[in-house]
Amino acid sequence: MRVTIYNEGVHEAQEGSVTQRLYPQGMHGAIAAGIAPLLPDAVIRHAQLTDPSHGLTPEVLAETDVLLWWGHEAHDRVDDAVVDAVIARVHEGMGFLPLHSAHYSKPFKRLMGTTCSLKWRNDNDRELVWTVNPTHPIAAGVPSPIIIEGQEMYGEHFDIPEPDDLIFISSFSGGEVFRSGATFTRGLGKIFYFSPGDQEYPVYHHPDVHRVLANGIRWAMPTLPPTTLDAPMALRGWFE
Amino acid sequence: MRVTIYNEGVHEAQEGSVTQRLYPQGMHGAIAAGIAPLLPDAVIRHAQLTDPSHGLTPEVLAETDVLLWWGHEAHDRVDDAVVDAVIARVHEGMGFLPLHSAHYSKPFKRLMGTTCSLKWRNDNDRELVWTVNPTHPIAAGVPSPIIIEGQEMYGEHFDIPEPDDLIFISSFSGGEVFRSGATFTRGLGKIFYFSPGDQEYPVYHHPDVHRVLANGIRWAMPTLPPTTLDAPMALRGWFE
Amino acid sequence: MRVTIYNEGVHEAQEGSVTQRLYPQGMHGAIAAGIAPLLPDAVIRHAQLTDPSHGLTPEVLAETDVLLWWGHEAHDRVDDAVVDAVIARVHEGMGFLPLHSAHYSKPFKRLMGTTCSLKWRNDNDRELVWTVNPTHPIAAGVPSPIIIEGQEMYGEHFDIPEPDDLIFISSFSGGEVFRSGATFTRGLGKIFYFSPGDQEYPVYHHPDVHRVLANGIRWAMPTLPPTTLDAPMALRGWFE
Amino acid sequence: MRVTIYNEGVHEAQEGSVTQRLYPQGMHGAIAAGIAPLLPDAVIRHAQLTDPSHGLTPEVLAETDVLLWWGHEAHDRVDDAVVDAVIARVHEGMGFLPLHSAHYSKPFKRLMGTTCSLKWRNDNDRELVWTVNPTHPIAAGVPSPIIIEGQEMYGEHFDIPEPDDLIFISSFSGGEVFRSGATFTRGLGKIFYFSPGDQEYPVYHHPDVHRVLANGIRWAMPTLPPTTLDAPMALRGWFE
Repeated sequence: MRVTIYNEGVHEAQEGSVTQRLYPQGMHGAIAAGIAPLLPDAVIRHAQLTDPSHGLTPEVLAETDVLLWWGHEAHDRVDDAVVDAVIARVHEGMGFLPLHSAHYSKPFKRLMGTTCSLKWRNDNDRELVWTVNPTHPIAAGVPSPIIIEGQEMYGEHFDIPEPDDLIFISSFSGGEVFRSGATFTRGLGKIFYFSPGDQEYPVYHHPDVHRVLANGIRWAMPTLPPTTLDAPMALRGWFE
Repeated sequence: MRVTIYNEGVHEAQEGSVTQRLYPQGMHGAIAAGIAPLLPDAVIRHAQLTDPSHGLTPEVLAETDVLLWWGHEAHDRVDDAVVDAVIARVHEGMGFLPLHSAHYSKPFKRLMGTTCSLKWRNDNDRELVWTVNPTHPIAAGVPSPIIIEGQEMYGEHFDIPEPDDLIFISSFSGGEVFRSGATFTRGLGKIFYFSPGDQEYPVYHHPDVHRVLANGIRWAMPTLPPTTLDAPMALRGWFE
Repeated sequence: MRVTIYNEGVHEAQEGSVTQRLYPQGMHGAIAAGIAPLLPDAVIRHAQLTDPSHGLTPEVLAETDVLLWWGHEAHDRVDDAVVDAVIARVHEGMGFLPLHSAHYSKPFKRLMGTTCSLKWRNDNDRELVWTVNPTHPIAAGVPSPIIIEGQEMYGEHFDIPEPDDLIFISSFSGGEVFRSGATFTRGLGKIFYFSPGDQEYPVYHHPDVHRVLANGIRWAMPTLPPTTLDAPMALRGWFE
Repeated sequence: MRVTIYNEGVHEAQEGSVTQRLYPQGMHGAIAAGIAPLLPDAVIRHAQLTDPSHGLTPEVLAETDVLLWWGHEAHDRVDDAVVDAVIARVHEGMGFLPLHSAHYSKPFKRLMGTTCSLKWRNDNDRELVWTVNPTHPIAAGVPSPIIIEGQEMYGEHFDIPEPDDLIFISSFSGGEVFRSGATFTRGLGKIFYFSPGDQEYPVYHHPDVHRVLANGIRWAMPTLPPTTLDAPMALRGWFE
């Protein structure tokens, strides 16, 4: 199980930022520390915006079973060639977990085909994450609700395609609701979007969030060898 | 457009009840008065528990395009033969709108095949009804959110099959969420479950609720002549 | 992994029947022999119509993780109390695999809420079973198409609710198509309907069919302890 | 109802081609002639590759409620700026009907986020188009099956996201199956993919195909004014 966490790393690099204070090892570091005990068979690596190819070289992608993606400030600075390569790997079977503000990342928008727009408010709302699909593997061992004391609000309407499975719905103290955990399939790749998590709140230290992410990674693991999907001519009776 | 509203009528019959005060014409009367201007081509009739066959004789059902169902106290007093006839008509194409506590009505439970269980609290929560499917005909002209100042709380997990379309998600001031508007197809019948509405709150006087119900009725209208679905033997090449 | 195969056993009991010749150990015996090597951790038992409680006593059901159901001639002879118990166990989390003509069995019809009607023809059609959801665990290791040289035709329109996941679509030499592998969730129970298999064709000796059934059983395993779903009152702030 | 049919027009321009013989008015002409009597309130116009902006100028797109798209040879010659404009209009609410080989068109691939790959064979298969969703408005008045005497084969696996609604499944005389009619929502735009139709077969003269396309256009009509979906900050209590 080879996991790569892309974290753009922009907020962490700002001296004196709340992100730096909350996440001295980076958000990716907090995520890695949280999921590692739950995925003892996983090798976890880190990629960031300032690495060559943002750390997502063809070699790294070829060796990645599941890619987590955290981005916010620097969506536009991600190279389209890297995005193309990520999309191609998802189509081949790589799992993909876009996190929180990655709703507006290039790979997620291209895989969804929608605007991925939503409402938001950075005002320390309490978020409650309710399970609506209790038998889904991603919900295993997750309390309903997860209680997140402070968090950015993300609200409907969230412009995404109808999910394969809707697993979590959040409410916020301001009254908004949000489809906060949802799965999709694109090509042979399984995608799990999960919104809780923000650079200004300690959400990535929350053990229930670690559980959800670990479950999501395990669920998104490829089940087939990497396969390029193309459009072959099929002779009559080719299967006989 | 022939609409029948089944309302068990138990709460309204209790002298001095809050229901009697809120709904002097009955909840069915408030619903009928609210939707009539929005469905000028509709003939609306009323059926209740104490009528012979609960008002749902074969003749009435045969002349009903869409059946609304409000029940709460008297689910168990509904005759199974009437339930069978309602189910048969849904399978033939009749539209069906179970309302609020009808989540536990016999016809809805049988059409869903699940327990239809949920959490609840009668404590004057504010309910906000958010649209998550803005292009669905049932959402046309409906503000997001609908604001319902006082209402019983219905919360997840709501044990229903995955809906064909999830249209509304509610939040409550206590923090719970609920899939409050959802569609299903059973046989040739279209079903729209809508939870806002209660015998102790004036929800059925709310103009946005009238709009949703009118939209739901129009959406659930049969599109085919009544047809009994059976399992015919089909000779090879029967379609040629 | 505790698997129970209910096979009514009526066709096998008819002296000189084609079923007896094709399945000297019964269809359940052929299924058990086929899946056992693929599910080495499974304990497989058999239940039949003529057993007390059709072999599905409360004790047996309590000890069953996944129930397979084959029925055809004797749907109506299945005791409603046993059906109630099966449904209750599915709602609690037991997996359920209705096979072929079990589309018309009492438990499947009640869990679906539809008529479950379809077209059919017993005329030795070749059935090709195509995978349309290649990353689903039930499709793992299954060729597309599975080639079944002779089989009863089942054709659309198949009156089922929209499946959670549509995995297989079959074509028949007569030109018909059928949604032959589909999943549903009811309560906490996972359901997989798979149509290939008939008492007059040797389909249950087909290794690809064994693979699908073994995958389906593994997929339908309960992930939570048995839980009765009910409708509790939830005090404000109960989760804090 | 303002309908625009984009037809690249490459096959029709080849002197002596089978397309020219089958479709002296172009495939768009055959489609327009077929749907016009079924959509008496429609204004139908035509756009083609060799027009400035392929006939899809901002003005034309702004005046288009539903866009049909036929392309095959010249997918790569479609200007990305035009594709961007089409996508933006779909997100704003314009209906979109990609036809047959438009599975590989730029707009469809971008709206789906998948490879849109499939199997194919140009060998005069008979295609049978079966309805699996008989109450969907797109199936109204459509026989099941539609019989298309000669047609290119399109077969699974078709790499598309799980459709909102699967309406038609085709079989071919070679035994393959294909999800030939499926709907999607992207932004506020409704999308209906329909595969029957080819430049070398007279499918666009088939009255049942006309019926499906007319139904699809009516279904895909925008229900809201054109709206740009963006991500506004929402002050606490903004809705009160």
